[in-house]
Amino acid sequence: MATHKLLLLPGDGIGPEVMAEVQRVIDWLNAQGIAKFETEQGLVGGSAYDAHKVSISEADMAKATAADAVIFGAVGGPKWDSVPYEVRPEAGLLRLRKDLGLFANLRPAVCYPALAEASSLKRDVVEGLDIMIVRELTGGVYFGEPKTITDLGNGQKRAVDTQVYDTYEIERIGRVAFDLARKRKNKVTSMEKRNVMKSGVLWNEVMTQVHAREYKDVTLEHQLADSGGMNLVKAPKQFDVIVTDNLFGDMLSDIAAMLTGSLGMLPSASLGEVDSKTRKRRSLFEPVHGSAPDIAGKGLANPIAMISSFGMALRYSFDMGDLADKVDAAIAAVLASGLRTADIKSEGTTPASTSQMGEAILKEL
Amino acid sequence: MATHKLLLLPGDGIGPEVMAEVQRVIDWLNAQGIAKFETEQGLVGGSAYDAHKVSISEADMAKATAADAVIFGAVGGPKWDSVPYEVRPEAGLLRLRKDLGLFANLRPAVCYPALAEASSLKRDVVEGLDIMIVRELTGGVYFGEPKTITDLGNGQKRAVDTQVYDTYEIERIGRVAFDLARKRKNKVTSMEKRNVMKSGVLWNEVMTQVHAREYKDVTLEHQLADSGGMNLVKAPKQFDVIVTDNLFGDMLSDIAAMLTGSLGMLPSASLGEVDSKTRKRRSLFEPVHGSAPDIAGKGLANPIAMISSFGMALRYSFDMGDLADKVDAAIAAVLASGLRTADIKSEGTTPASTSQMGEAILKEL
Ligand SMILES: CC(C)[C@H](C(=O)O)[C@@H](O)C(=O)O
Ligand SMILES: CC(C)[C@H](C(=O)O)[C@@H](O)C(=O)O
Repeated sequence: MATHKLLLLPGDGIGPEVMAEVQRVIDWLNAQGIAKFETEQGLVGGSAYDAHKVSISEADMAKATAADAVIFGAVGGPKWDSVPYEVRPEAGLLRLRKDLGLFANLRPAVCYPALAEASSLKRDVVEGLDIMIVRELTGGVYFGEPKTITDLGNGQKRAVDTQVYDTYEIERIGRVAFDLARKRKNKVTSMEKRNVMKSGVLWNEVMTQVHAREYKDVTLEHQLADSGGMNLVKAPKQFDVIVTDNLFGDMLSDIAAMLTGSLGMLPSASLGEVDSKTRKRRSLFEPVHGSAPDIAGKGLANPIAMISSFGMALRYSFDMGDLADKVDAAIAAVLASGLRTADIKSEGTTPASTSQMGEAILKEL
Repeated sequence: MATHKLLLLPGDGIGPEVMAEVQRVIDWLNAQGIAKFETEQGLVGGSAYDAHKVSISEADMAKATAADAVIFGAVGGPKWDSVPYEVRPEAGLLRLRKDLGLFANLRPAVCYPALAEASSLKRDVVEGLDIMIVRELTGGVYFGEPKTITDLGNGQKRAVDTQVYDTYEIERIGRVAFDLARKRKNKVTSMEKRNVMKSGVLWNEVMTQVHAREYKDVTLEHQLADSGGMNLVKAPKQFDVIVTDNLFGDMLSDIAAMLTGSLGMLPSASLGEVDSKTRKRRSLFEPVHGSAPDIAGKGLANPIAMISSFGMALRYSFDMGDLADKVDAAIAAVLASGLRTADIKSEGTTPASTSQMGEAILKEL
């Protein structure tokens, strides 16, 4: 059996608590001989800053580069609100994405039937919702240069951010979206602001070309990002796969996540290009939720998004789709049994702490 | 009585139909001697392109500059999808905003009690919602240079857009937001992505300074734009005034509008700086909805957003707050009577065409 090397980066806030539940799943898989994972731990975000005055150390970056997959918790919190911009907690995550070349961010927004009531939207609008948002993750305004604040004198400063996209960046994220659509409902909606942004014009043009050249069997639709956001709120079930740039993807995937009423349940995968020789790709898996410093250390956090992110690692990095299906089924079964962490509790359900929820999922497995 | 000069720019799609209803209100106010409006008409968007191959003619720009207020319908439609970028319908609107210096875009998101059921959100989440989104309108990625597509050879192109903000631009939009909050619930939420964008860092810093210097009596809160979007969907009533940049404002105001279930009802005002001598400011008023080409010319459009935008002109440009209140009350009364255009119809209400709705509001007045 092949040994898979994992780097666990719990990060800040509730990161360590929810990562502990993934660690238990890994230990159990190893003990049962179902898989062979070798894990290392590292620091990222505020915890790395506290230890080394950086958002991630060179040693941990080297571990991330050597790992077969990185499992990431969450970063940030008010404690680090005034650390210098270059070493703020988020910088560690952004460096991992950029240096590992993780250009494709997959964010499923699924409404668990047991949780439809937890959404602020009407049940019939979100029940059965199953969208995949494919967000470009290493380009756009996140990394474009210049990115500066200049003192102009007279008490005036000028801030500049730059959105840059090249044809190949749009092509490769397009292919990820079309490939995913083929295994789903065969529809891709591309979102940009071509009526205002040149990057939107190019985005639209390249998506249209990739579709015409390689994916005629998939339905391609274009929406402006602002009306796309509206449609997400109005009638989200019209979507299957949404493909969009880094910044619009940040906004739209958070909104899609909130629609489901299951923010504490949603995983994400960030993938690099497939190496033509080894057929491997770099990857990082993280929950969509943040570090929730207000509830950290109280056993209140929901570990499902984190465990489900590990499930995505099994599926997308280790070709263990069957095992991933079992993880998903275990989560669904525990929810169906009525167990709930505080964020998803409702009348008639059984309260569970972070570790009780992790324990129950492990038992199901 | 002072004469007020209005330029009416109906634009494309349903623009002319809904503008016709505003024209009736104006004619009536003139006939009754309640006010004295002098109106001119112009072309903008696709209709200007069809007539002059531009998105707005120099002659109409001159009329707009000379007018006391511009009343704008909507622009765009599939008919002009392939016209050159520089003369696309939206370019006319963007030029009006930029050349008239309309930096402050006010977008109220109000949930009419009679329409709470039309929202995709649960009634208790949106009932009574009353948010004011203050969007910066002449800066950011909409107008920053460079804004280019370059051919790199090898079939590769590079698209660049530039987000630029200077201190004074953030200060003046901040003041508009704080001033409005003082007349409302005294709370401003500023939204940006300071964890990723330098313009977000400067935005946050300047808002904090303006607040500390001039508006200590108002509550100021900061949210990241992605979690702000989430919170809008989860619990929108936590907000009073939201102030944000041009692109985030585009996205967030559309989402806020959709929450109310009343997209066809929401007006907007775009205001310039107050002239220190004349105490006047340039202004443009437009509905939040678009040109809806699919229903154009069928008498199906809801004229309320357009009439309500004219109401905002009365309030913000002509100091006729009492008359504006009467317009608002007339709209509310007609809705309470059960009259509905197709977009807001529900069981037990009376269907109305565009002109029947306009007529009914006029009768109420
Ligand atoms: C933490 C932050 C830098 C990050 C982003 O903006 O990409 C987060 O919001 C996300 O969506 O993963
Ligand atoms: C028509 C378009 C250019 C415009 C914008 O992006 O500002 C519209 O979406 C709006 O919100 O007024």
